[in-house]
Amino acid sequence: MTEPDVASSDATNIECRIERDGDHYVINGTKWWSSGAGDPRCALYIVMGKTNPEAGRHEQQSMVLVPADTAGITVKRHLSVFGYDDAPHGHMEIELRNVRVPVENILLGEGRGFEIAQGRLGPGRIHHCMRSIGAAERALELMCQRAIARTAFGKTLAQQTVTQERIAEARCSIEQARLLTLKAAYMMDTVGNKVAKAEIAMIKIVAPSMALKVIDWAMQVYGGMGISQDTPLAYMWAGQRTLRFADGPDEVHRNSLAKLELARHMKLPTGGVDMPITRGS
Amino acid sequence: MTEPDVASSDATNIECRIERDGDHYVINGTKWWSSGAGDPRCALYIVMGKTNPEAGRHEQQSMVLVPADTAGITVKRHLSVFGYDDAPHGHMEIELRNVRVPVENILLGEGRGFEIAQGRLGPGRIHHCMRSIGAAERALELMCQRAIARTAFGKTLAQQTVTQERIAEARCSIEQARLLTLKAAYMMDTVGNKVAKAEIAMIKIVAPSMALKVIDWAMQVYGGMGISQDTPLAYMWAGQRTLRFADGPDEVHRNSLAKLELARHMKLPTGGVDMPITRGS
Amino acid sequence: MTEPDVASSDATNIECRIERDGDHYVINGTKWWSSGAGDPRCALYIVMGKTNPEAGRHEQQSMVLVPADTAGITVKRHLSVFGYDDAPHGHMEIELRNVRVPVENILLGEGRGFEIAQGRLGPGRIHHCMRSIGAAERALELMCQRAIARTAFGKTLAQQTVTQERIAEARCSIEQARLLTLKAAYMMDTVGNKVAKAEIAMIKIVAPSMALKVIDWAMQVYGGMGISQDTPLAYMWAGQRTLRFADGPDEVHRNSLAKLELARHMKLPTGGVDMPITRGS
Amino acid sequence: MTEPDVASSDATNIECRIERDGDHYVINGTKWWSSGAGDPRCALYIVMGKTNPEAGRHEQQSMVLVPADTAGITVKRHLSVFGYDDAPHGHMEIELRNVRVPVENILLGEGRGFEIAQGRLGPGRIHHCMRSIGAAERALELMCQRAIARTAFGKTLAQQTVTQERIAEARCSIEQARLLTLKAAYMMDTVGNKVAKAEIAMIKIVAPSMALKVIDWAMQVYGGMGISQDTPLAYMWAGQRTLRFADGPDEVHRNSLAKLELARHMKLPTGGVDMPITRGS
Repeated sequence: MTEPDVASSDATNIECRIERDGDHYVINGTKWWSSGAGDPRCALYIVMGKTNPEAGRHEQQSMVLVPADTAGITVKRHLSVFGYDDAPHGHMEIELRNVRVPVENILLGEGRGFEIAQGRLGPGRIHHCMRSIGAAERALELMCQRAIARTAFGKTLAQQTVTQERIAEARCSIEQARLLTLKAAYMMDTVGNKVAKAEIAMIKIVAPSMALKVIDWAMQVYGGMGISQDTPLAYMWAGQRTLRFADGPDEVHRNSLAKLELARHMKLPTGGVDMPITRGS
Repeated sequence: MTEPDVASSDATNIECRIERDGDHYVINGTKWWSSGAGDPRCALYIVMGKTNPEAGRHEQQSMVLVPADTAGITVKRHLSVFGYDDAPHGHMEIELRNVRVPVENILLGEGRGFEIAQGRLGPGRIHHCMRSIGAAERALELMCQRAIARTAFGKTLAQQTVTQERIAEARCSIEQARLLTLKAAYMMDTVGNKVAKAEIAMIKIVAPSMALKVIDWAMQVYGGMGISQDTPLAYMWAGQRTLRFADGPDEVHRNSLAKLELARHMKLPTGGVDMPITRGS
Repeated sequence: MTEPDVASSDATNIECRIERDGDHYVINGTKWWSSGAGDPRCALYIVMGKTNPEAGRHEQQSMVLVPADTAGITVKRHLSVFGYDDAPHGHMEIELRNVRVPVENILLGEGRGFEIAQGRLGPGRIHHCMRSIGAAERALELMCQRAIARTAFGKTLAQQTVTQERIAEARCSIEQARLLTLKAAYMMDTVGNKVAKAEIAMIKIVAPSMALKVIDWAMQVYGGMGISQDTPLAYMWAGQRTLRFADGPDEVHRNSLAKLELARHMKLPTGGVDMPITRGS
Repeated sequence: MTEPDVASSDATNIECRIERDGDHYVINGTKWWSSGAGDPRCALYIVMGKTNPEAGRHEQQSMVLVPADTAGITVKRHLSVFGYDDAPHGHMEIELRNVRVPVENILLGEGRGFEIAQGRLGPGRIHHCMRSIGAAERALELMCQRAIARTAFGKTLAQQTVTQERIAEARCSIEQARLLTLKAAYMMDTVGNKVAKAEIAMIKIVAPSMALKVIDWAMQVYGGMGISQDTPLAYMWAGQRTLRFADGPDEVHRNSLAKLELARHMKLPTGGVDMPITRGS
């Protein structure tokens, strides 16, 4: 099994080539997790690849528009997400072999692919976080309803303190993630995505893991029903699980956030422990 | 949506009726999670239901053999596990309406269904735990291979201490679960399932959760590949997740185990804290 | 060892008796965790006890003012918090034997002790939560400084991804707890403590545990220095640990919060899973 | 505040100098966490320092015997462990200034200090792990006794499922740590400390954290009593907490263990995921 050109948090890992040939770009590469490409209505791809592998880390990539019916394109297969194929939308693996498009199909200009990708990351991330919070809220509601309705050994599950502990923890976690997301949104609106980068990283780290925890508890209260098609929980879980690496894995976001935090202390004397406290953001 | 006759850790929740009518039993009920019933080779069902709902908690149930082609049986649909349908094996929902079988089809005798079910639980559980350990071992292997092979930001993932932490924790967790399972197996072989009930409960609690943790870490190292069909990880995860409620949810096993632990202290004076330590098992 | 009259989250557990005898109240009981009573400047005690054990659950208790030099009072010993004696402040165990005070020393009136106690709980709790957040912030600062300054095996601890993970998690946890505390404070100011009871319960659950996690990570980065008197970390940890049961243990607050959450679903039909989502707060 | 010559998992961090001067060694340095040096009966120190800072990483250190009354020695102060001073035993900070001892006081030979230290680490570690398991066992016993004896809101704590969950988790964790420690001990006896190094690392990682978790739960069940001198819990907690960095912090042991695990996969082809499973140890 060989691994195709993955979406990677390290953009230099992208291997798709976009080479200029007169008035055209010639594209060669294999892309996977091309979500939506399974839908017959999908007529146009946005392809990111390297126009200049020798350039600086963030100037190597470009984005070009590629009509789905261009010669040289083969949709090879779909990828499943915990058994879900998400048809007809689909997550497709697509091979591009000597695919030619006019040079005017480039977006913004050569070497600006990373910049475009970066531009949408903040809004994209907060969009996902809002959905994570909604999913967690829905799971908590389902958990409460089931806990009230389900009796075992003479008591409802809602009367068990172990259930109550989880419901309380779920509510605390959801509220905290919601408030952090609202703060990030407010900052994006008022001081911009760049200043808000720590907050955007935080919600990207926090929201999907929080949602997974709550959904998992809800599934446990439902038992077999919880992992089947009879509740939305299993599908919600699978979707949230992908968000722990989509747009960069948790680990990369935690490293970035830590570096911002450490930078606040870099110019301070570090040997001692008695200096005045600098405030949290 | 109505919930059919679920496998419940509280056997009194079973609602399928098996009523004697002359030389036959007449069965009425709906069963779900009938695993394997999707396979065309499945010719015989073992059905558990209540022959005597008025009897003591553990004498209400009986098991009868029911040929799959008996009149009154409808296989209504399959249930999915996350997005997996497990075809052709399948987890089916089956309706039994006035299904008649000869009285000699009963297993062991009326009212002995719970006893039969109990008899297989110990061996069934340890079987699953051994498979959980195998799954975790496989996931750790895959995690290590990927961590060595995958480079991001100029280093392999294996060189990151965050990856090393997880690999070490995974190894510690697997070894501990393995040793506890071996102890339980040794006790089942030497002193019997009844004396080993605490140990059987322990591995039922420990092994699937341990496996889920390790598999989840491995998935995270693989990113998109880890949740697709390109590694066995996502399917392993879904399977292990079912084991946290199959044959009784974790919560029920933890309650049982706690009661065994508490019973050791029930006859002791409890006000003080200076009594001699009683030994762990 | 016998256990004196503990502060209990269940006020009916209080056993100190306050009995009227003409123009006086006669107090008998033993109180422990009387914080501050070790200080020689402490001249007046506020004592809570039962004036009417037969009254309703929340009308049994009263509070009376008792001068520290009243006959019948014996300060028996101090209680330590881990190894800290907090001298001269101190947490004292005090015996009251036939202690007589004039009836006008009662606060607010007989049977109103629980009401008084409740009245200060909201403000008292948020005060502690604000201090927990401050403690966590200080610990994170110390952790960063040490991680930058300390080298082992050729790298600073700050360069290790395992350290970065913790710094990022700490920042995410602190920010979320801070925002939730701000929300609770805002609600207390605008709609009152009663309406804010869910939010007050949430921060009581969240803030001390969050602080303990962050302080523990910071201690680990400091090693031996972190648990000694050379940093504030160990003392901060001990202080925060008491807050997981002071003013009611986490478990009681989680149960209360869960019941508020469950109540939102009690009047809804609970059998199904397709009802519209009710919004989170 | 300056940091003296700490015990570090990275032995090259040791800064104490031992220089030969004719028939004597001259020692200069400051040592802290010299446990037991507070006891008036402590007559002899074993001092580790560098005789040859230019030698290989593991040949720089030597150990020498130093009578406690040698000129140039100053016991400067004690270090506390979460407020405990452990008097008279004590954990002392000791300054050695031009302390002279005869050359025959060296242990084993110059440059063999690291080797001596290593030799005792395996036995020392398993000794501590056995004690951790004993501490956890004692805490679980105390937790059960208290849970049975303590009533709140009309039920004993032992009847709450949240308590039962913790008791069960505690028993599972203790049993697993015990079995892993027994395995490590068996290997040390039969194949030697070197072959058993992975197992020794595992128990060093597992046992103190397990004990801390169980003791913390027990403290929570006791409330104020649990952190005072009235139960052994708080002191046990403080002691176990030191073991998460004594003889090397958890993080260093996890890194070592991970490298052993990764090494098993280093010579295998790593690109694919379909290779046969290598067995766990």
